[in-house]
Amino acid sequence: MSRFLHSKFTSLTPYDTSEEVESMKGYIRLNTNESPFPPSPKAIEYAHKASAGLNYYPDPDCRKLAEALAAKNGIKPSNIVFGNGSDEILSFIFMALCERGAAFPDITYSFYKILADLHGVKYKTIPLREGFKILTEDYSDLNGRTIFIANPNAPTSLALDSGELELIISSNRDSLIVIDEAYADFLGKSAVRFIRKYDNVIIVRTFSKSRSLAGARLGWCMCCDEIARDIRTIKNAIAPYNVNAMTQAAALGSLEDEEYTRRNIAMICRVRDNTKSRLREMGFEVLDSSTNFLFAKHETIGGPKIYDALKKHRIIIRHFSEPFVLDDWNRITIGSAEQMQVFLEVLKGVVEREGR
Amino acid sequence: MSRFLHSKFTSLTPYDTSEEVESMKGYIRLNTNESPFPPSPKAIEYAHKASAGLNYYPDPDCRKLAEALAAKNGIKPSNIVFGNGSDEILSFIFMALCERGAAFPDITYSFYKILADLHGVKYKTIPLREGFKILTEDYSDLNGRTIFIANPNAPTSLALDSGELELIISSNRDSLIVIDEAYADFLGKSAVRFIRKYDNVIIVRTFSKSRSLAGARLGWCMCCDEIARDIRTIKNAIAPYNVNAMTQAAALGSLEDEEYTRRNIAMICRVRDNTKSRLREMGFEVLDSSTNFLFAKHETIGGPKIYDALKKHRIIIRHFSEPFVLDDWNRITIGSAEQMQVFLEVLKGVVEREGR
Repeated sequence: MSRFLHSKFTSLTPYDTSEEVESMKGYIRLNTNESPFPPSPKAIEYAHKASAGLNYYPDPDCRKLAEALAAKNGIKPSNIVFGNGSDEILSFIFMALCERGAAFPDITYSFYKILADLHGVKYKTIPLREGFKILTEDYSDLNGRTIFIANPNAPTSLALDSGELELIISSNRDSLIVIDEAYADFLGKSAVRFIRKYDNVIIVRTFSKSRSLAGARLGWCMCCDEIARDIRTIKNAIAPYNVNAMTQAAALGSLEDEEYTRRNIAMICRVRDNTKSRLREMGFEVLDSSTNFLFAKHETIGGPKIYDALKKHRIIIRHFSEPFVLDDWNRITIGSAEQMQVFLEVLKGVVEREGR
Repeated sequence: MSRFLHSKFTSLTPYDTSEEVESMKGYIRLNTNESPFPPSPKAIEYAHKASAGLNYYPDPDCRKLAEALAAKNGIKPSNIVFGNGSDEILSFIFMALCERGAAFPDITYSFYKILADLHGVKYKTIPLREGFKILTEDYSDLNGRTIFIANPNAPTSLALDSGELELIISSNRDSLIVIDEAYADFLGKSAVRFIRKYDNVIIVRTFSKSRSLAGARLGWCMCCDEIARDIRTIKNAIAPYNVNAMTQAAALGSLEDEEYTRRNIAMICRVRDNTKSRLREMGFEVLDSSTNFLFAKHETIGGPKIYDALKKHRIIIRHFSEPFVLDDWNRITIGSAEQMQVFLEVLKGVVEREGR
């Protein structure tokens, strides 16, 4: 720590990216919920075209993208704001729209806590119930706190249905409800209709998962005009040109090739359900996933043991050591059919050796 | 404004990007100090290669880039942190390294004020002296405030020499000195050696100007290990993957093709000096530029009049209405030789019509 660091940050825990970096060295990466498929050829083609004009600043408002996404979602371009990944959008929200604090499940996307701490936002965590379920009744008396719901949730892979979401929104009209739909394309449903109906909802989405553009960094959100203006004001005060020109182009290419994304999603869901069955046959408890990953726990072998054994075979999955209730579980990204076959074969060996 | 916006932001003035957007529609853009040259063919080639792997997250630490830049600058990769444009780096600094306030010239990069306001940093502005000069004597008794010096400065185009910079650094050992070298490649000198000598210096740089990569968004900074770790901690808490994979690749391609950048810089400086002479012949006072732009004032025609007349001819330059002392001046980016010829011809007509 330098002598210049602001005292409010001296106890900030840095986010550890070492596993991500290590996993780049020839591992089968089943740890960050990436897509095993390259981006659409049209995305690559558009990005390549854009690269010739990189000497010019990009469109600060991503207008072409906003128009395309607005048309697809039945909203106006002014309802949309873009970020350098959805993490940046979430950061804007924690920074500017959480004056009365935040609330989120105790088990959810781990970045919410990091962003809350960074921006000095006090938060309340709400315990999941039996089976890692979010119970709508638990989301009341929150005194205007901004409520973050990842739907489907991570790392549990479980989703609320539309009625449950609306109950949280309509019974907390003093709160802003942030619905993080990073994995919603695998669920096949979005809460978009609520942003036409309620002025206290933001839906956050990403091009990193179903659209195979994690490396391009593009997140976006949908909300009423007033909130969109607020987020845009913050965005423009930090980095007006936050989305580079190649990424804007690649994303547009992806949106013009929906068939490609649809096919990939269908394939991932098929491989996922097959993997789930195989895992259950091996003695795993596996939650019913609405995402591109599985959350699984073996009946006798501990979570860290499985994680370590796979890592020795150059397969990396995700283990969470906190909170302790997650220690027996692992999160497994669905890779290609070939990758999952290797994964299952190696895992079978581990279970036969280690299981009792 | 929504009912959820944090009260500390309700008076934040949004940064107006409308001129930037408007200027994209077929204008000769001499308003944002972009390069008129496309990026190096090697940058384009590398970005294209990277696009095939966009389904994976990018390297959060930009390690290849850090190694290449460290070797070029005689420092360690650990001395370098990257941002989604240098604006993001500056935002990290205002957020985390300005506990005792900030200080910068009253006329300098306009974003410093915006970032200070956003992050609740109190700042002191230090008036430029006669001829828009920064006087080192004025940078004392700053009580540990973080001092921002754009060198060369914008929009004035003037640079301090190395001895003057060192005087500010060495006489303010309680202050962090941020040297913003966005235009240093046109000056041909960097303050990099000071980061090996002093622990209170950050040098901020960008790929947007001399390297023709404004559209790719890449900024970076050099500083001692302790400060670099602080900035990295903040970066990793906001967006660990802040630089996309195509941009990392394009920047590496640019670094492997220095001859291309050198040639472009030489050409821009040549066209700049020629433009300066022509402007002086037309009755303009023009500062001696160390950048890729000129700061100029006509002896009889007001700044806004020149700006408006050029805009009617679809040429857009930059006019600053604040502070008032700048009202007679305009900032003119150096475009290609062809663009500057058109600019000078149109301007000649304006001067003949409007000059007295």
